[in-house]
Amino acid sequence: MTQAPSADRLDSPAAARAAYRAGLVSPTSGHAPGSTQANLVVLPRDWAWDMLLFAQRNPQPVPLLDVTEPGSPRTPLAPEADLRTDLPLYRVWRDGELVEEVPDVMDLWREDLVAFLVGCSFSFERALLDAGVPVRNIEQGRNVAMYRTDRPCRPAGRLSGELVVSMRPVPAALVPTAVQVTARMPAVHGAPVHVGAPEALGISDLDAPDFGEPIDARPGDVPVFWACGVTPQAALMASRPPFAITHAPGHMFVTDVPDGTYRLP
Amino acid sequence: MTQAPSADRLDSPAAARAAYRAGLVSPTSGHAPGSTQANLVVLPRDWAWDMLLFAQRNPQPVPLLDVTEPGSPRTPLAPEADLRTDLPLYRVWRDGELVEEVPDVMDLWREDLVAFLVGCSFSFERALLDAGVPVRNIEQGRNVAMYRTDRPCRPAGRLSGELVVSMRPVPAALVPTAVQVTARMPAVHGAPVHVGAPEALGISDLDAPDFGEPIDARPGDVPVFWACGVTPQAALMASRPPFAITHAPGHMFVTDVPDGTYRLP
Repeated sequence: MTQAPSADRLDSPAAARAAYRAGLVSPTSGHAPGSTQANLVVLPRDWAWDMLLFAQRNPQPVPLLDVTEPGSPRTPLAPEADLRTDLPLYRVWRDGELVEEVPDVMDLWREDLVAFLVGCSFSFERALLDAGVPVRNIEQGRNVAMYRTDRPCRPAGRLSGELVVSMRPVPAALVPTAVQVTARMPAVHGAPVHVGAPEALGISDLDAPDFGEPIDARPGDVPVFWACGVTPQAALMASRPPFAITHAPGHMFVTDVPDGTYRLP
Repeated sequence: MTQAPSADRLDSPAAARAAYRAGLVSPTSGHAPGSTQANLVVLPRDWAWDMLLFAQRNPQPVPLLDVTEPGSPRTPLAPEADLRTDLPLYRVWRDGELVEEVPDVMDLWREDLVAFLVGCSFSFERALLDAGVPVRNIEQGRNVAMYRTDRPCRPAGRLSGELVVSMRPVPAALVPTAVQVTARMPAVHGAPVHVGAPEALGISDLDAPDFGEPIDARPGDVPVFWACGVTPQAALMASRPPFAITHAPGHMFVTDVPDGTYRLP
């Protein structure tokens, strides 16, 4: 394995992807700042209709940025990239069970696989900071806190599952700003789905997230919940397609698309 | 055929649909004001993947509001409606050729048909008026002018075709307002794709639209072009699926969804 490049080589999307391709395994937060990062879900052609329809029916948790041709590892979001090698870490799923994490999926690729690239909240965190809204998980150097809810997604064919949300504590006076800023970014989850009252979403303990890490609220903060790109992974676990590949949490696909592209005026 | 109800009975979505179901054949402009109207495309299950992917790849001309289960004429956009009877006029296509226009499709319906409901510019015309932007086609009592362009859509499987645009003349000083207002309605075509210079889109004569009616510009007006929901009909003509049903131009599906639902803040 090639020696991993140092972090100062990761300031462009192409450099970041080259580093992952050469063997660097690292969460992608902060890499290639200003470039959109995406969640990855790969399914056999036979399940692709269900996934595409699931996304159409649940655009807040599953905002699609691109869908590839069957068998092709190429996307216009980054024309030089290879989706089989250019993410730092992948998860492999069989019958809804996570079976391994691997640094590339060259040996697992098949001609019937379709890749779905899904918008990621990293894009709107930057917009929140630009608008003066503190982002506690960034301040605390942690992955965001994510929770399963009791709110079902609208099913599509064989795919169903509950909505997963990310939570960020926001100072009460800045909640309206946070709503307005993210509402203008529907391609990366859009406006929050819920403000305050986690119990109304079936979340009993904010200190025990189902994914990611707990985030400390500061006095006067209110928990704000956004639809989360982990929702399709939860649907895979619930619906058990025979084979799937996803990114490992936090180890996203770095695209060439500037973040501003997904901000509406 | 039942006697057609008078226009003053068409002020709610349910009343309008009941009138069409009872035999009224009429363009739907102005009916059930404030309710979202939608374009309809129906294809066999075998072609549905191509259409769903075509929409995902071309969201400005094909903004999907809903996709039905195979064989079902029901949509949550109007839970009491029947998509086989509740539009005033349908077009039937075989091998890409228009073969007939009919007031219902009960006898043509099949268990493998999937319906796509696509956002319509009627929704943003109301928002333009609310923002003080005159809408010349409404002033002139005409259908909007629509043109084929030389700009290809991004293909999806067997579906391809050129972008179709609608054109509205806008006073030069109000062009920025028109852009901002419609940019906040991505579910109903969003921001214009082009302002001025029709020749750059391959349009040689604004007085000879390919669909709809020519619209008279007033002095100081600039032609503004939006992606148009007729684009999928043009793709059907170019790509020749064996069977398809669409609405007849201007004879839309009236949903129960308030227009404001599709306006972002």
